[in-house]
Amino acid sequence: MPQRRLAAGTNAEEARQTLLQRFGEVRERTVRLTRHLEPEDMVLQSMPDASPVRWHLAHTTWFFETFILGKFARGYEPYHSSYCHLFNSYYESVGSRWPRDQRGLLSRPTATEILDYRRAVEEKVADLIGSLDAKSFEGVRPLLALGLHHEEQHQELLCTDIKSAFALSPLAPAVLPLPESFAAEPAAPSAAANERWVSFEGGLRSIGFEGEGFAFDNEGPRHQRFLQDFALHGTPVTNGAYLEFLQDGGYQNPLLWLSDGWAWLQEYGIEAPVYWRERDGEWFEVTMHGLLPLRRDRILCHVSAYEAFAFAEWAKARLPREEELEIALERDDPSGGQFLDPEGFIHPHLAGRDQALGSAYGTVWDWTQSSYSAYPGFRPAPGAVGEYNGKFMSGQLVLKGGSCATPPGHVRASYRNFFPPDARWQFTGIRLAKDL
Amino acid sequence: MPQRRLAAGTNAEEARQTLLQRFGEVRERTVRLTRHLEPEDMVLQSMPDASPVRWHLAHTTWFFETFILGKFARGYEPYHSSYCHLFNSYYESVGSRWPRDQRGLLSRPTATEILDYRRAVEEKVADLIGSLDAKSFEGVRPLLALGLHHEEQHQELLCTDIKSAFALSPLAPAVLPLPESFAAEPAAPSAAANERWVSFEGGLRSIGFEGEGFAFDNEGPRHQRFLQDFALHGTPVTNGAYLEFLQDGGYQNPLLWLSDGWAWLQEYGIEAPVYWRERDGEWFEVTMHGLLPLRRDRILCHVSAYEAFAFAEWAKARLPREEELEIALERDDPSGGQFLDPEGFIHPHLAGRDQALGSAYGTVWDWTQSSYSAYPGFRPAPGAVGEYNGKFMSGQLVLKGGSCATPPGHVRASYRNFFPPDARWQFTGIRLAKDL
Amino acid sequence: MPQRRLAAGTNAEEARQTLLQRFGEVRERTVRLTRHLEPEDMVLQSMPDASPVRWHLAHTTWFFETFILGKFARGYEPYHSSYCHLFNSYYESVGSRWPRDQRGLLSRPTATEILDYRRAVEEKVADLIGSLDAKSFEGVRPLLALGLHHEEQHQELLCTDIKSAFALSPLAPAVLPLPESFAAEPAAPSAAANERWVSFEGGLRSIGFEGEGFAFDNEGPRHQRFLQDFALHGTPVTNGAYLEFLQDGGYQNPLLWLSDGWAWLQEYGIEAPVYWRERDGEWFEVTMHGLLPLRRDRILCHVSAYEAFAFAEWAKARLPREEELEIALERDDPSGGQFLDPEGFIHPHLAGRDQALGSAYGTVWDWTQSSYSAYPGFRPAPGAVGEYNGKFMSGQLVLKGGSCATPPGHVRASYRNFFPPDARWQFTGIRLAKDL
Amino acid sequence: MPQRRLAAGTNAEEARQTLLQRFGEVRERTVRLTRHLEPEDMVLQSMPDASPVRWHLAHTTWFFETFILGKFARGYEPYHSSYCHLFNSYYESVGSRWPRDQRGLLSRPTATEILDYRRAVEEKVADLIGSLDAKSFEGVRPLLALGLHHEEQHQELLCTDIKSAFALSPLAPAVLPLPESFAAEPAAPSAAANERWVSFEGGLRSIGFEGEGFAFDNEGPRHQRFLQDFALHGTPVTNGAYLEFLQDGGYQNPLLWLSDGWAWLQEYGIEAPVYWRERDGEWFEVTMHGLLPLRRDRILCHVSAYEAFAFAEWAKARLPREEELEIALERDDPSGGQFLDPEGFIHPHLAGRDQALGSAYGTVWDWTQSSYSAYPGFRPAPGAVGEYNGKFMSGQLVLKGGSCATPPGHVRASYRNFFPPDARWQFTGIRLAKDL
Repeated sequence: MPQRRLAAGTNAEEARQTLLQRFGEVRERTVRLTRHLEPEDMVLQSMPDASPVRWHLAHTTWFFETFILGKFARGYEPYHSSYCHLFNSYYESVGSRWPRDQRGLLSRPTATEILDYRRAVEEKVADLIGSLDAKSFEGVRPLLALGLHHEEQHQELLCTDIKSAFALSPLAPAVLPLPESFAAEPAAPSAAANERWVSFEGGLRSIGFEGEGFAFDNEGPRHQRFLQDFALHGTPVTNGAYLEFLQDGGYQNPLLWLSDGWAWLQEYGIEAPVYWRERDGEWFEVTMHGLLPLRRDRILCHVSAYEAFAFAEWAKARLPREEELEIALERDDPSGGQFLDPEGFIHPHLAGRDQALGSAYGTVWDWTQSSYSAYPGFRPAPGAVGEYNGKFMSGQLVLKGGSCATPPGHVRASYRNFFPPDARWQFTGIRLAKDL
Repeated sequence: MPQRRLAAGTNAEEARQTLLQRFGEVRERTVRLTRHLEPEDMVLQSMPDASPVRWHLAHTTWFFETFILGKFARGYEPYHSSYCHLFNSYYESVGSRWPRDQRGLLSRPTATEILDYRRAVEEKVADLIGSLDAKSFEGVRPLLALGLHHEEQHQELLCTDIKSAFALSPLAPAVLPLPESFAAEPAAPSAAANERWVSFEGGLRSIGFEGEGFAFDNEGPRHQRFLQDFALHGTPVTNGAYLEFLQDGGYQNPLLWLSDGWAWLQEYGIEAPVYWRERDGEWFEVTMHGLLPLRRDRILCHVSAYEAFAFAEWAKARLPREEELEIALERDDPSGGQFLDPEGFIHPHLAGRDQALGSAYGTVWDWTQSSYSAYPGFRPAPGAVGEYNGKFMSGQLVLKGGSCATPPGHVRASYRNFFPPDARWQFTGIRLAKDL
Repeated sequence: MPQRRLAAGTNAEEARQTLLQRFGEVRERTVRLTRHLEPEDMVLQSMPDASPVRWHLAHTTWFFETFILGKFARGYEPYHSSYCHLFNSYYESVGSRWPRDQRGLLSRPTATEILDYRRAVEEKVADLIGSLDAKSFEGVRPLLALGLHHEEQHQELLCTDIKSAFALSPLAPAVLPLPESFAAEPAAPSAAANERWVSFEGGLRSIGFEGEGFAFDNEGPRHQRFLQDFALHGTPVTNGAYLEFLQDGGYQNPLLWLSDGWAWLQEYGIEAPVYWRERDGEWFEVTMHGLLPLRRDRILCHVSAYEAFAFAEWAKARLPREEELEIALERDDPSGGQFLDPEGFIHPHLAGRDQALGSAYGTVWDWTQSSYSAYPGFRPAPGAVGEYNGKFMSGQLVLKGGSCATPPGHVRASYRNFFPPDARWQFTGIRLAKDL
Repeated sequence: MPQRRLAAGTNAEEARQTLLQRFGEVRERTVRLTRHLEPEDMVLQSMPDASPVRWHLAHTTWFFETFILGKFARGYEPYHSSYCHLFNSYYESVGSRWPRDQRGLLSRPTATEILDYRRAVEEKVADLIGSLDAKSFEGVRPLLALGLHHEEQHQELLCTDIKSAFALSPLAPAVLPLPESFAAEPAAPSAAANERWVSFEGGLRSIGFEGEGFAFDNEGPRHQRFLQDFALHGTPVTNGAYLEFLQDGGYQNPLLWLSDGWAWLQEYGIEAPVYWRERDGEWFEVTMHGLLPLRRDRILCHVSAYEAFAFAEWAKARLPREEELEIALERDDPSGGQFLDPEGFIHPHLAGRDQALGSAYGTVWDWTQSSYSAYPGFRPAPGAVGEYNGKFMSGQLVLKGGSCATPPGHVRASYRNFFPPDARWQFTGIRLAKDL
């Protein structure tokens, strides 16, 4: 049936153009996020878990070079003989790699050289995509999609990692200038909104990804779980509520904390969220826009799961399970959430939150009490990209919903982010749950 | 109704006598486990996670002193003003405590002094129990039962901790003499037995403790879970099978390991199970009876969850979930399992294992892939004893079934043991599972 | 000349008997120092620099076994195949050895077994000495003498190491009972004595050992040094004087400290001498006899060289150089000093100190500002015993004069003890010096 | 006497002009050393002991700002409120400071901003100097001179620190381009030169600085020492000689090493000098000009004192004492040595070394066996600049003579450089000595 073939051809061509356009947009957004940074800033690594901006710019490019050009571009010669060693993150099957905790000890290639590298790879990828026949294109397509979602993840990490580095500086530099709209930000939600709980009926429910479109391998297979009746709080916890916990001695009372959490708090002398600063009795907060007075009506972020757990104990509630949040997210519209706006403001806010569960998407990642583990029947993707998710299923907790530093369109209800319980440098917050 | 009262009275009296008898037996068994040790041995602490024998003898006594005598014996004066500080394990609400990782830095009170302490507390507890009226006895009873189960747990830890210390010594001392029966131990199971899988039907199932008798708070509430069809292997993995994995390069292939596991292996230079020793191409094993040649037909033990996971990957199977093992255990008879025999031999063996799932109880704790977390509706017991289980629900995995160092009668189908994935000094083994 | 030969023979025989008697006395004193200890105490290792009592008892025996029996007793078979590995301290040329910082992880051989080992080696050594002809005896004699001085050094270390371990315990056990004479101890010296300085003329002077009798290799060769005129304080610093320094903010003022010393103080949170304890505003001191009130009129001990340096800065004086103290010691009588009295009291006291420089010997080791280095022309003894002193000539300071835990007769004017500047567990004190 | 006054005035004016000119030259040379670096390079800190180039540029400026402008410029306002905290090195009396080991975690102020800071301070200093009357100028003069010598020290550190950072990179970037003259470098010295020893007579000699001109406080007072007869080798050890030591098992033989040195070697797995690299049996060396083949005829550099000591043991010689080298340097002409040539080549070479002791100045710092300690009668300068030298008199060794990275004119015979014995990143080499 020629029409169908033609149609298919047309669709494929359209898909190809769409993908190429998205390729350009995603790649360009990464660079745009760095436009206020100086070359010196690009080198900083605040801790082993965070990476320099230089590295994010290069690693996301290495991903396309290795998994697209290296596999599909005939006779492809690596752009530079050392870049695979320098910019591989953790793919054991791809070869040796520079130690993760020493990424901040390198200055070369410079940011300028890395931008050249980016452009060179982008051109080759565009050429390759343009030159493939429809069938070959179908083979490349999932890896290209994976590369773009991978790069979107690194956009969020780029924001959190440079924030983590700037937060160390007594100069508190801004990653992005403060938008004028800040002063005009909406006032606190009504007390009523803060008290609102949303109830969900339990029973045998399905969770996990199934269907068309992109998803990471760890989101499937879709499978059944039995849930009890439960309720979620209408908004994530605010700075004001958390300040109450703190001022009520929350950081001094071991009975509120997990044993690991209390040991962690004592070892590191933790007394407040990582980006909170006290000066003469006033509280401030390190933001992407420098040091600003702490606003009680903003959504709390940058807390560890240990802190989230202790707060929930104090509030006589609990953290949600991953299936509970997934069911809540399924009935929400992602476009209602606050996501990354690279032109402007990256800070958890409260706009539009004066409805119960305006959207559980965006603003801050919600910690769950669920360990990050394999769904029944899970098998990692074959090959090196199979090292993407499965091997991290140990010692981490699932987070849901996306944050104000997540690129728009990146998350789904089934999306499973994961971090160890002591991680604080992501835009992580607390959404309370309770049994009914 | 006098009869009923009388009957109740009689039953209560019987219950009291039964409990007192059990109290005597449990306390005596702890001391009996140490009868081949020298005073110097009692001091050793091989690592922060393990405790000296001295400490186990005293801590189990402190538990009764604090939670029984301290709460129920009128005007009770502590046996010694420093013992609460020295022998509290982790109860934040009971006061300060000597640092866990420095227990091996103390020699006083000596073992002899601690045995005096044990006897003094035992007498007071017996006096107290004997003197209570029926109603008061009912109040004390659950705490006394808890204390006995707590002491049974420490009997297992006492075995694993002194084994861990002796394993460091080039002299490889024996904790217990090797029984004569060792040479006459049963031969290897038939190959058929080793190949046998037992299938289980999935569906909506209930797990968790409910009913009469003792259970720890973390075993409830009983609740529903949805399981897919699955199979469990008829026997835990043997030394022979694990040796194959090792000789096939299992410790050199990162693709078999969880990311955390591979990092752990590299950091500590791990190349074999913790108690395996190679001498001139022959393998030996540190046992409770000194260094013995490794027998391929014995059940493997003392592996971490990381090793268990890697082995399962290599064997193209997976680790079971806690609900799967619980369902298997529910249809088994605990008395069919190999448990602690303090008079004799503590070593995982194969006796009676030549039937499919002769019993999933005993021999070695089976690692599960399930993180240790709260069941829906779980609330810790109120008061200090509520610090017993809930606060450890972070970073640990559930193990099921009991081991050859677990006192007989101690475990149940719903019993949840838990350790971090890198723990190797317990009698931990591998039982493979697969999807159907 | 037969007479001479006879005489020589007689003298040799006398020398042999004298040495054998001294051998018996020294060996017996080591054991006597432990007579109030329990077997459990013998296992303790408070830190990598300190060793268990078990280990001292065995190591001093291993020294005779290795360097006397192993070299001179024909066909000697080691007492136990593992003891050389377990009880070698640092002799690289003698073979592998158990890691120093893990000596506290072993309980076997037990103290009883080690005492058997001691007796067995003592008998063999006595047999060997008795059986040697005069010429062979002369060959063994220096090594035997070395072994005895070595054992005397370990007598002091045995005291300081068990004190260090007991100081950790909240029970503050006593190593030796407090003698009744304690209450009758002499009162404080007159203020005059405390103000007395003793002057010395400078010029070209000789230091270092030369002549008959025993000395360690590091005490020679005797050589010339040019000294300026100087003065030494008549008594070591007292607790009272040091308390003034402490209460004057000595531990809070970086300008008084060496840069390394200040870093050390901050890293370990040091606020007072290691064995001082404050309770409700009163100061106490951990002693060999348990915790006692701090007496201001006693000699200060257990301070690091960093503390000594800071105190001297504060007192507008300086630490002496090794040549200055040697010259002062040369005109003193060692028998005037307070040395180890194993029957009784080990605590720096002030008896007989009310004369200027009653004796610079004993009571506490005086820190010098002199780095421990080779004298011009120094060459270590050949063979394994040459590893005794020379290889430690890095990062250490010289101490002079002996302490109340040094066996009587052990030190000389030329004796060079050495420890790193942060060491505090020896009986180390401060003697001030100044330029004239 | 007006003439004299006039003369004094004239001389003072000349002195002022000379100093100002030197101020300009020294400051300019610092910046010139960085002219081939990228902004990213300026951020790197390879280890806590090394500092970023950014930091050196700013700290040397802070020194003038704090000790010249802050003290002498009336009403001076700090250039930036945070710079004192950020760029103070170790002056406790000047206030808080950013932790030394975290200097590489900062990117702001950027290199450009720091260059602005440099110029602003330079202008103010020049203005101040120009405006002072003669008497005031005499007050400022010593501090200005100190600041210039301080900056010269940091020129050497800037070279060694960036070399240390670049040496980590697999790309082995060059700090300075390789001059064309390299190929034309002089050939190896004659074997005869390598065998030449120079003898010195001992006796009572004076060392230490005295007289006109600049010297650091630690170089005085001049005082007498008694020396034995000794000899120094005519040239520092070459790569070739050291390679022989290495190939003779020097790094495997504990008997050659100080105990601390052997522990250091084992802890860090050290098998060769820090900048030597082996590839397929060939040796290469990281230089300021990138990775180059190791030339056996070049002077060895970048060895620790531990390595120097072990080599000397192997060569049956010893390291010199500081007084021995000072006496040798006194009869040499500094202008005969190889010093920093910021336009060109920074690498230890052999030009002009074919004479016995052509000059003991320059090329590499010679390790001595002398601990860095106070000369008799030493008192640090009063005030904050007194923290310059005295407080480091602990745990370090003296080095003499200057290196190919030392600015010309910077060293004297009495100059005492000092580093801990494990330091390897300076241009440190070995000059053998022996007793006669």
